[in-house]
Amino acid sequence: MNHTDKQKPIHQGEVKRSPIGVFDSGIGGLTVVKRLASTLPNENIIYFGDTARVPYGSKSNSTVIEYSIQNTKFLLLKNIKALVVACNTASSIAIPDLKKIFDIPIIGMIEPGSKMALKKSQTNKIGVIGTRATVGNLAYSKEIKKLNDSAKVIEKPCPLFVPLAEEGWIKHQATYEIAEEYLKELRDAGIDTLVLGCTHYPILSEVIQKVIGRKVTLIDSGVASSEVIKSELEKLDLLSDSKQTGIQEYYVSDIPAKFKEVAELFLGKEIDHVHKVDLEVLISER
Amino acid sequence: MNHTDKQKPIHQGEVKRSPIGVFDSGIGGLTVVKRLASTLPNENIIYFGDTARVPYGSKSNSTVIEYSIQNTKFLLLKNIKALVVACNTASSIAIPDLKKIFDIPIIGMIEPGSKMALKKSQTNKIGVIGTRATVGNLAYSKEIKKLNDSAKVIEKPCPLFVPLAEEGWIKHQATYEIAEEYLKELRDAGIDTLVLGCTHYPILSEVIQKVIGRKVTLIDSGVASSEVIKSELEKLDLLSDSKQTGIQEYYVSDIPAKFKEVAELFLGKEIDHVHKVDLEVLISER
Repeated sequence: MNHTDKQKPIHQGEVKRSPIGVFDSGIGGLTVVKRLASTLPNENIIYFGDTARVPYGSKSNSTVIEYSIQNTKFLLLKNIKALVVACNTASSIAIPDLKKIFDIPIIGMIEPGSKMALKKSQTNKIGVIGTRATVGNLAYSKEIKKLNDSAKVIEKPCPLFVPLAEEGWIKHQATYEIAEEYLKELRDAGIDTLVLGCTHYPILSEVIQKVIGRKVTLIDSGVASSEVIKSELEKLDLLSDSKQTGIQEYYVSDIPAKFKEVAELFLGKEIDHVHKVDLEVLISER
Repeated sequence: MNHTDKQKPIHQGEVKRSPIGVFDSGIGGLTVVKRLASTLPNENIIYFGDTARVPYGSKSNSTVIEYSIQNTKFLLLKNIKALVVACNTASSIAIPDLKKIFDIPIIGMIEPGSKMALKKSQTNKIGVIGTRATVGNLAYSKEIKKLNDSAKVIEKPCPLFVPLAEEGWIKHQATYEIAEEYLKELRDAGIDTLVLGCTHYPILSEVIQKVIGRKVTLIDSGVASSEVIKSELEKLDLLSDSKQTGIQEYYVSDIPAKFKEVAELFLGKEIDHVHKVDLEVLISER
């Protein structure tokens, strides 16, 4: 399916005011929405969180690709003009397939985060923290070394950071101790830049910064990808010409317990209404 | 489908040496296998962990029932004589449907754990800890109150205990602090019995016992269900007549990173070989 074949817009002006789509395997991508809304305040944003099928990290590549295609098709029903894949697993696995199928700008997390890390680093000694799945795939290491093969990259999985962020234990003593345990190896290795390779981690950035040390620059892939999508839309003359503050809409495949509380922590503001959708039914009906 | 219609055994002796099947949404059920092997050392055990589709707690009731039926069908292909549903979510949702469809003894976690809690408690002030999904459903509270409506039950979700157990942080300082935060409310409420309402939690029982206090009796639903299945098989004259130590076989729908390490921690011994199976393909082929 080719997006422009199916839904070719008649006026460029219409497309300009179309929303930017963002999907994630769950709730973490809301930290990316927060960055995106800050970088592009006049853009409308449609978020889809695949909360019924989270996590993607433990699933096979073909499943992650299939789910990513479904998520993108859903967002295209909402006439998005560009897509942010706000999930590190889907970014590292599905983007080539998404780009083959869909004819809109598609931005992931890995490439923008890697580029920004290399730009900010003085010593090219870069740390990357993420889930066990992301770190196991060495997605950031491969991307960073592709861009600069003299860079030294050390990756470290921090599995407890996701549940700590979801618990909202942002300054809890236990969080400091866990961060100390996870990060001491990176600190001792003398990195000068640390990529937060999981969309949950910006929630814990204060603790992470304190433990890793003030001299280390933290890279938020949500910030990096927001800047990339801004320049892409600029190039294509597709930035919104609206002077109004953009509207955000939220769709999820399930609403688990405590969802609203966690979502608002991640987003940094209140959510009025979240729509629950059955993706497989929706897609198959078209 | 009726199991006895499809696979009626010719000799009772054959059935006696058939394995007991155990399924869980993932890896936590291995703590139940450990208890079962200790209670019934001559029984063979077949374990299925649905690691590709974990967690069940965030999925709809109909999905949990469908997966539980698939898991049971798979175990029946291995000629199990009885089934232990070693997953609190599936136990609370799917057991009535499983009992309607399959004609073998089926034991969950909730009923045995609740009965044992009431038996051990002097004051009928009982605490229950579990995942957010289990606690949200009040599965143990409902069962305990059904058995004794004067019992007072306090439930508390402890979401960080699962990742802490999987990290193997059994005696880590952070684990004590997190347990203190979660359990102080139950301790202050003066419970005398605490149900570990998640199959991961026995891994952390030492910390939990220290924090909740030595006077509180911990209930391991894996121990409780092992005793129930033993007496059920005794009644039906289906206990193994073998004098050999039973054999255990492990099947999973996916093998995530660090699987072997975590599985061995949960099981308390080495795993030689774990078989990966594609459940949907297997079931649909029959």
